[in-house]
Amino acid sequence: MSLLVVGTVAFDSVRTPFGAVERVLGGSATYFSCAASFFSPVRLVSVVGGDFPDEHIQMLKGRRIDLDGLTCKEGQTFAWSGRYEGDMNEAETLDVHLNVYDDYRPVLPESYRDSRYVFLANGSPESQLKVLDQIDDPALVVADTMNLWISTALPELEQLLTRIHALALNEGEAKLLSGEQNLVAAGEKILTMGPRLVLIKKGEYGSFLLSRDGARFALPAFPVNQVKDPTGAGDSFAGGVMGYLARNDVHDDGSIRRAMVFGTVMSSFVVEDFSLAPFLRISEDRIWDRYHEFVRFITV
Amino acid sequence: MSLLVVGTVAFDSVRTPFGAVERVLGGSATYFSCAASFFSPVRLVSVVGGDFPDEHIQMLKGRRIDLDGLTCKEGQTFAWSGRYEGDMNEAETLDVHLNVYDDYRPVLPESYRDSRYVFLANGSPESQLKVLDQIDDPALVVADTMNLWISTALPELEQLLTRIHALALNEGEAKLLSGEQNLVAAGEKILTMGPRLVLIKKGEYGSFLLSRDGARFALPAFPVNQVKDPTGAGDSFAGGVMGYLARNDVHDDGSIRRAMVFGTVMSSFVVEDFSLAPFLRISEDRIWDRYHEFVRFITV
Repeated sequence: MSLLVVGTVAFDSVRTPFGAVERVLGGSATYFSCAASFFSPVRLVSVVGGDFPDEHIQMLKGRRIDLDGLTCKEGQTFAWSGRYEGDMNEAETLDVHLNVYDDYRPVLPESYRDSRYVFLANGSPESQLKVLDQIDDPALVVADTMNLWISTALPELEQLLTRIHALALNEGEAKLLSGEQNLVAAGEKILTMGPRLVLIKKGEYGSFLLSRDGARFALPAFPVNQVKDPTGAGDSFAGGVMGYLARNDVHDDGSIRRAMVFGTVMSSFVVEDFSLAPFLRISEDRIWDRYHEFVRFITV
Repeated sequence: MSLLVVGTVAFDSVRTPFGAVERVLGGSATYFSCAASFFSPVRLVSVVGGDFPDEHIQMLKGRRIDLDGLTCKEGQTFAWSGRYEGDMNEAETLDVHLNVYDDYRPVLPESYRDSRYVFLANGSPESQLKVLDQIDDPALVVADTMNLWISTALPELEQLLTRIHALALNEGEAKLLSGEQNLVAAGEKILTMGPRLVLIKKGEYGSFLLSRDGARFALPAFPVNQVKDPTGAGDSFAGGVMGYLARNDVHDDGSIRRAMVFGTVMSSFVVEDFSLAPFLRISEDRIWDRYHEFVRFITV
C-alpha cells in the first residue's frame, strides 16, 4: 500500500567517540525511506540543492524509493553538523544550514494525493498541516515533532494533533508537550489532545506505545554492543514501523506491535555504523534473523 | 526452598514531589523480604536498635519472614534520609546515620547455614564475603553492590564476583565497574569477572539480563502513572525475582525470565506509595492480575 514520507534530505557531518564523517547522506526522509523500503515502496517528498550528487539519487531510486516528489533547487542542500558524547543518547548540534530547505513548501505530485500511509517527519506543524491538505484519504498519518515546535508553534501543533492518527516523539518532548514528568501520564495527556496513538521513542531504552482504546505496549531497544552513530535511529524506527504496516495494509493492535519490533530492528542496524551504511549492507534475511533474535530477547 | 537475605533494616525519611514521610520502615532487607514473602518464606539477617518498634517486628513475622537472624542491639536503628526530584530516577541522600549498623558483622544462626537461595543486599564486599563463608551449599547467590564499593573496595568486590552466581546492579554502577559506556558491553565485561548472570536494573527503564551461556533478556518497567516514592524499588525487584525462584526451586533461563516479570511487578507496586504501604495492601491475586497485565504489555 502507498507509503509517503515528507521530511529532510541532508548532508550530515557527525563526530562520535568512534569516528567522524563529513557531508555524508542524512536527513529524516532519507533514513525513513531507506528503512521502510525493505518492506514497501516509498514516495519521498523533500528538496535538495544543486550540490546533491547523482550517486545518492541513484542509490535511492535503486531501493524502490520514488523520487517524483524530490525537488532539486538552485542552491545548497540542507546541512547539519553534530556530535555525540558519553552515553550518546542525544546529539549536540554544532551547526545547521537550512539552505534550500529554508523557504521550501512541500508540494506533492498529483499522483501522491492517494497516499494511504503517511509519515510527516519533524518539521514545522504549519508545513505538516499543509502537506495533509494535499492528501485525499490517508489510512494512517504519523507525525514526528520536536521541542522547538512545542515551544514556538504550540497552537499549530495542537491543530495538527487533531488531524493525525499517531504522534511519534521522544521522551523529553512528550514531557514538555504534556507538562507531565511521568511518561505514562505524559502519553495519556497527549492522547486527549487528538491522536489515537502516541509512540514515545526512548533511544537506547526502547519505545512505548499508548493507544486511546487503552492498549499499552513497550519494547526495549535491541542490545547493540557498539553504537557507532545514533543519527537517524528515530526515523529508521519510524520507517520500519510504517513500512511494515504499509506492506500489510493493516494497523490493528497486533500489527502495530509487530511493526514496532521491525522499527526496533531497523534502528538497531542503522546505529551500528555511520550514515546509511548499514542499510546498504543488509539483506531482508538479516532483518528477519534479527527480528527472531529480538523476539527471543523479549519473550518471557 | 530456603531463601536468605542479608541487608539493612532502617528508618527512612523521604521527600518526593508527592509528599514526605519521617522515620518510616525501610532498608534493603525489609523491602526484599516483604516482596519475596508473597512467594516464599524468607530468612532475614540484619540488625536494629532498641528504638525499633515491636509493631514492625510483628508485621514482618506475620508475613512468613523468619527473624531469628535479626539482631537487636543497644543503640539506634540505621536511619536514612533522602529526596527525589524531577524524573525521580535517583535519590539524593540528605543524611545517613549508620548507628547500630556501623560495626555490625552479620552472624548467621546455625539453622540458616543450609540456605539455598541467598540475596546479599548492598553492603561492603568484605561483609558479603563473610556471609558467604557461613553458608554451606547455596544453589543461587545474588549480590547487589554500589558505586561506593566499586570505587573503594574493588579487590574485595572482584573476589566476591568469583564466588556468586549473579550480580545485580544499576546502570551507572555497571558502567563504572566495567569501564564501558555501552550497557551491553558493560554487562559482557562483568560476565568475564566471575558471575554467570548479570542483572542490570534500569529503574523506570526496566531491567536487562545477560547470561554467560549467551542468553539476553530485557523487560521494560510496568507503566505506573504515578511514582510516589521509588525507595526500595530495586530491592523489591530482587525480592520478587528470588522469591519466585525459591518458591519453585528452579533457576533455568525460562524461570529467571518469569522471575524477572514478578520482580518487575513487585517493584511496580512498591513505588505507588511511601515505604512498604503497597505490600501491606495487596493480595496474591493482585500480583497475578498485574503479572498477566504486564505480559500483555510486552507481548508482540
